[in-house]
Amino acid sequence: RPYCSRMALGERLLFRQLFESASSTYTYLLADTQTKEAIIIDPVLETLDRDLKLVDELGVRLKLAVNTHCHADHITSTGLMKKRLPGLKSAISKFSGASADVHLSDGDKINFGKHHLSVRETPGHTDGCVTLVMGDQSMAFTGDALLIRGCGRTDFQQGCSKRLYESVHQRIFTLPDHCLIYPAHDYKGQMVSTVGEERRFNPRLTKSLEEFVEIMENLNLPKPAKIDIAVPANLVCGVHEV
Amino acid sequence: RPYCSRMALGERLLFRQLFESASSTYTYLLADTQTKEAIIIDPVLETLDRDLKLVDELGVRLKLAVNTHCHADHITSTGLMKKRLPGLKSAISKFSGASADVHLSDGDKINFGKHHLSVRETPGHTDGCVTLVMGDQSMAFTGDALLIRGCGRTDFQQGCSKRLYESVHQRIFTLPDHCLIYPAHDYKGQMVSTVGEERRFNPRLTKSLEEFVEIMENLNLPKPAKIDIAVPANLVCGVHEV
Ligand SMILES: [Fe+2]
Ligand SMILES: [Fe+2]
Repeated sequence: RPYCSRMALGERLLFRQLFESASSTYTYLLADTQTKEAIIIDPVLETLDRDLKLVDELGVRLKLAVNTHCHADHITSTGLMKKRLPGLKSAISKFSGASADVHLSDGDKINFGKHHLSVRETPGHTDGCVTLVMGDQSMAFTGDALLIRGCGRTDFQQGCSKRLYESVHQRIFTLPDHCLIYPAHDYKGQMVSTVGEERRFNPRLTKSLEEFVEIMENLNLPKPAKIDIAVPANLVCGVHEV
Repeated sequence: RPYCSRMALGERLLFRQLFESASSTYTYLLADTQTKEAIIIDPVLETLDRDLKLVDELGVRLKLAVNTHCHADHITSTGLMKKRLPGLKSAISKFSGASADVHLSDGDKINFGKHHLSVRETPGHTDGCVTLVMGDQSMAFTGDALLIRGCGRTDFQQGCSKRLYESVHQRIFTLPDHCLIYPAHDYKGQMVSTVGEERRFNPRLTKSLEEFVEIMENLNLPKPAKIDIAVPANLVCGVHEV
């Protein structure tokens, strides 16, 4: 079965992908349409109002705001969202170094209604990067570990290209080929990929480990514009000034 | 059943939404994963290479490039795509005034493999605006007739707000509430909506016809930057200089 042959996400699943253009970040809203329990992944400060309005209109109840890692390019809205929605909890990897209500470990399940996401630790871009996999393995939220035809950089925070390579190969590429890949960012207007596609066409991750390390060492990317503000803010859920 | 409770698009359907950031245009690729027949909706000149690369990687065969209308804000890649993919045909409404291999009329079916889109004429933004509805009414590509929480402007080309209001109410809002709405543009990082949501929350189309006309007459929008280049180009499938 080739790529993305279905987006069938099972019954009772509400799913929305949202984009924040300044940092090219994708935010994901998922809910059980019957129980109305919802979670949000990687919400961004700039789009807090848009996201909360949508949550309100859709009539779902946010129970958890999860960050796939401590982002360096934007400030999370998690902290302010908690202030706006009493009862909402925040979650992030226990290896992120960031404070949160829930510290995630490999194998943890994030439940919302009859659905759940499973936590897979996929370090390498940072120590605390996780990939969140739907219970039926129909989709995976890969954060900055695996991007569409790309991957997160490994030249700041706790970046380690060897570790990232192993995370992607051992924890993401072992998912079914048809599993949809929803990354934390895209810079080319691409919204989704699949495990099968990335296994075949990712220009970096199809290489050998040695070639991958070489590629990652020579990207010569500028430092993210907001890193000195974003990382400290995200270590405290984006509420450093509140 | 509330909004977007499923993205189940039936079997054998490959679906991709793509974004062109300069004009905030969405391009859609749909294919039958078995026969590999594919169509593309509203492809943009700037992202021609990206789109053709994806078509190639996914191993599908583009048979038709459809424009939902003669766009004023960007140049279609349809003409150049035809040069790059011999056998590809172009399609647009017979009321668009634009040349194309296929002139679409209300009720026409666009077949790709076992799937098809039905053409619904939804004029008002322009005379030649169509909405393309999946055979099972699971999704509708609304062009600029209906945007997410918005709609196309009616102050240039053959814009007529009364006509647009009637098109949306009679030809789009009559689709099932769960039908996914995929517009030609979005400016706020929203990717999809549903008929039910727009019927309830669209700030313009929930108004009376009189209020709608009043709103549309007072938008005071600047003229699209590229209109004087884009419209003449799109009237000849974007190949005016070739
Ligand atoms: Fe990151
Ligand atoms: Fe338009």
